[in-house]
Amino acid sequence: MIIIIQCKDQIGLVADISQILSEAKLNIVSMREHVDKAESMFFMRLDVDGYSDEGVLTESMRRILPEGALIHVNPVSEKRIVVLVTKEYHCLADILVRNNFGTLGATVVGVIGNHDILQKICDRFDIPFSLISYTDVSGDPEQEMIDKINSYSPDYVILAKFMRILSPRFVASFADRIINIHHSFLPAFAGANPYRQAFERGVKLIGATAHFVTNDLDEGPIIAQQIIPVNHSFTAADMVKSGKEIETAVLAKAMRLVLSDRVFVYKNKTVVFDN
Amino acid sequence: MIIIIQCKDQIGLVADISQILSEAKLNIVSMREHVDKAESMFFMRLDVDGYSDEGVLTESMRRILPEGALIHVNPVSEKRIVVLVTKEYHCLADILVRNNFGTLGATVVGVIGNHDILQKICDRFDIPFSLISYTDVSGDPEQEMIDKINSYSPDYVILAKFMRILSPRFVASFADRIINIHHSFLPAFAGANPYRQAFERGVKLIGATAHFVTNDLDEGPIIAQQIIPVNHSFTAADMVKSGKEIETAVLAKAMRLVLSDRVFVYKNKTVVFDN
Amino acid sequence: MIIIIQCKDQIGLVADISQILSEAKLNIVSMREHVDKAESMFFMRLDVDGYSDEGVLTESMRRILPEGALIHVNPVSEKRIVVLVTKEYHCLADILVRNNFGTLGATVVGVIGNHDILQKICDRFDIPFSLISYTDVSGDPEQEMIDKINSYSPDYVILAKFMRILSPRFVASFADRIINIHHSFLPAFAGANPYRQAFERGVKLIGATAHFVTNDLDEGPIIAQQIIPVNHSFTAADMVKSGKEIETAVLAKAMRLVLSDRVFVYKNKTVVFDN
Amino acid sequence: MIIIIQCKDQIGLVADISQILSEAKLNIVSMREHVDKAESMFFMRLDVDGYSDEGVLTESMRRILPEGALIHVNPVSEKRIVVLVTKEYHCLADILVRNNFGTLGATVVGVIGNHDILQKICDRFDIPFSLISYTDVSGDPEQEMIDKINSYSPDYVILAKFMRILSPRFVASFADRIINIHHSFLPAFAGANPYRQAFERGVKLIGATAHFVTNDLDEGPIIAQQIIPVNHSFTAADMVKSGKEIETAVLAKAMRLVLSDRVFVYKNKTVVFDN
Repeated sequence: MIIIIQCKDQIGLVADISQILSEAKLNIVSMREHVDKAESMFFMRLDVDGYSDEGVLTESMRRILPEGALIHVNPVSEKRIVVLVTKEYHCLADILVRNNFGTLGATVVGVIGNHDILQKICDRFDIPFSLISYTDVSGDPEQEMIDKINSYSPDYVILAKFMRILSPRFVASFADRIINIHHSFLPAFAGANPYRQAFERGVKLIGATAHFVTNDLDEGPIIAQQIIPVNHSFTAADMVKSGKEIETAVLAKAMRLVLSDRVFVYKNKTVVFDN
Repeated sequence: MIIIIQCKDQIGLVADISQILSEAKLNIVSMREHVDKAESMFFMRLDVDGYSDEGVLTESMRRILPEGALIHVNPVSEKRIVVLVTKEYHCLADILVRNNFGTLGATVVGVIGNHDILQKICDRFDIPFSLISYTDVSGDPEQEMIDKINSYSPDYVILAKFMRILSPRFVASFADRIINIHHSFLPAFAGANPYRQAFERGVKLIGATAHFVTNDLDEGPIIAQQIIPVNHSFTAADMVKSGKEIETAVLAKAMRLVLSDRVFVYKNKTVVFDN
Repeated sequence: MIIIIQCKDQIGLVADISQILSEAKLNIVSMREHVDKAESMFFMRLDVDGYSDEGVLTESMRRILPEGALIHVNPVSEKRIVVLVTKEYHCLADILVRNNFGTLGATVVGVIGNHDILQKICDRFDIPFSLISYTDVSGDPEQEMIDKINSYSPDYVILAKFMRILSPRFVASFADRIINIHHSFLPAFAGANPYRQAFERGVKLIGATAHFVTNDLDEGPIIAQQIIPVNHSFTAADMVKSGKEIETAVLAKAMRLVLSDRVFVYKNKTVVFDN
Repeated sequence: MIIIIQCKDQIGLVADISQILSEAKLNIVSMREHVDKAESMFFMRLDVDGYSDEGVLTESMRRILPEGALIHVNPVSEKRIVVLVTKEYHCLADILVRNNFGTLGATVVGVIGNHDILQKICDRFDIPFSLISYTDVSGDPEQEMIDKINSYSPDYVILAKFMRILSPRFVASFADRIINIHHSFLPAFAGANPYRQAFERGVKLIGATAHFVTNDLDEGPIIAQQIIPVNHSFTAADMVKSGKEIETAVLAKAMRLVLSDRVFVYKNKTVVFDN
């Protein structure tokens, strides 16, 4: 069983929590704990051996935890995700492959694109693809997209190189459940054309950042980041090409972490309990 | 207070330990815990706020822990180290600088060399240097070295590019307390001239490994490792030069980890609770 | 145009070569050059703007180069590759995706497996898959495989986690044209079960190595290597899982380098002219 | 001999240059070349065996190169550097150690601090230290510093964690010869307190950047950058501590590159011919 706890810190929390587990004959395989002293917040992820009724366990926990505590006992293990794309295939294909072989830690229930270029790769994997174009200005494509996503009841919405800015209405519809991959090591080069910006600045490394989406563009809580070295011989196009490799890797890592309930969000930051 | 525990695993350990802390009014700032399921071993490092008598706390712990448990409450915070060197300055100088500015996490009580080349840098930092040459075959330089080291009563002996193989007698004299830096990513290129071996093999990365010394050459428990990329343009001499940078960095990291009581040794492996 | 030269070194080579290009009105966009002084060998890769008859240019070059020189003017730009697999999907799927989107720098003309597990993913991408089982001991599956590969006339044979040892007969059939991905940072952990070996040794980093295949198991010229950090919390199974990510990345990188004529092989080493 | 060339690009440059070398009986050991096609600029670094009169060679080169070309034949091999510091020791001590053992590729002719804290470490290495305080507002400490630096006739001025902003007057006095280490992966977190900014933003990696100083704060041409991973358990103080390690490493790397004439500056970017 996996148990997730996030609450105000107080003395004796670990003792009280582990007492409950001990009484329930649950053996702790792995306990990850973090206290943010400045914010006086407590974060814990438990991996325990044995079985106990989830409702009873949650209730026991609630009795000893401070008011307002978040407790999840055995969060949904097989999440549902919807993937939003534009034209670039690399992140989507990586997700479809992992989904196909059962190693994604989630099920891709649908893909939505604002272009039809990636329809075909979805077909190859028997995943439904919906085209919602933004070129017809008479309609409300974003609302259409919100409705379509809602029809899938997903746990998370993955922006796999979806190249449009989302409105507050969209973000609010899936608060804390939208993950984006941005092609720079944020906060450097937020916004459009980060590789062009990186090329112009003459940096010696380029990066990618996976983060939760908020209403502040590219300002949401960071989940994972990675960089690769570049040099003067890289054109902006070379950076785009090399960058795709880490975009794919970083988004895959962020999804692995979020989908295995290893990421806590608090005050625009994340606590990540990786290996 | 720092509390270190290593023992056979059993159900309820975390509950029992945290109960003791709670009763002693000690608040857990950071709890790092690892269970090696295959070996059924339990490792824990606690950083707690508050104060409790060390002897009383150790005794309370011992009552609830399995027989044979290792418990250290507030291990010596300022360790004493002796550094052994031959001719290369980079690791020694880094240690002397950190020692000079009080950021080593230990005190260098003496340096012993089998050549006198590094006498001068020790003089610059007012650290005693002893020359024990291995060229005079009539004496027993290793016993002389053991005696000299013992006269310093060090917690750890650091081999900062000490280029001689140690006898079982030497290793036994300072069991589990000798740290070596080897200039390869072990187990690749154990033994002599690892950079020459790396050059001959045509590897695309070279590394450095800090490990505890056992009687099996370069086979002791690994504490830290790091690599840097190389390419066809590197001669063996270029590899030596670039390699020195990571030798220095890896040994510094390993010392930081060991000297802050973050490294547990078990069955020729280490458990390392880093940030 | 791309021009590749490998020959004994001699004074004035660059002057003579660039003189020929200048006379042919070819402008050098990028010139990469390496001299192995110990072996007195000269390696060059030229990327030039303009056009000149390939045969004439080759002939001009041959006149000024030492005897035995290798010269390739405009090597086949779209290579043909055959991929050999067993059960693991990650490297194959990555190759199929890149092939599908035209970014592999080669065409996958066929996949051969000694198990049928990966038939389906090949079907999804309309790539022919052949099952050649090794379990029926009455036949000669390796000869069957050689014949099948030859029927495709490939430029390269990619071992994308093909878990069988190849005989000298096989290696000789495709000398210098077989690329393997080995799941360790060679020369550490050659042979079977490298992650198990890595786990037992307690290393703090694991790696992957792409290399040309020779008759000495895991001893061929290394093309690319990469590592990721691990720690005590990784089981051997965790290492397998994390390792797959870099196996995929390293094989992709090695293929990109070889397929764009950036890799020279000499004396069991490679010269790699990457960005 | 080392030969450095920077000029407008034109057809036949490599042929003409290598022809001159060939006639002078100079054998090319290593030729590094870069063409910036967008800017139509040509950069070359030659390492040649043999000897030829420097003046004659320069003159021959000038005849075949476009007007305005920069040519350096055998640039000063042992540069003179002045180091500016405030209170932090790590970069300075690293420089002093390398200087002491003759591996810096330059001679430290003087250290200037705006605090006296680092006087003592300079004394240990017999390097002159000058205190020029900024606290006495009646004087003109910056002019004093310019005069002091000029008295040393240095090739480069190294800002080894000098924590004051330099005026245009200062920058103009040593144009293209001031190297700074900034404690972030620029352009992220320019200005004051980058680690605090990094902590607040919740990044998963922190970095350091060595760059030439211009009048735009932290906007000059980047020479080298590096990052290390961090996580939620790092306080801002932990980031400062970990960051020092890469600040030292990146500044050392940038100095090695610049001092061995491997760095070209053009349009606020660098071309770096490293191994």
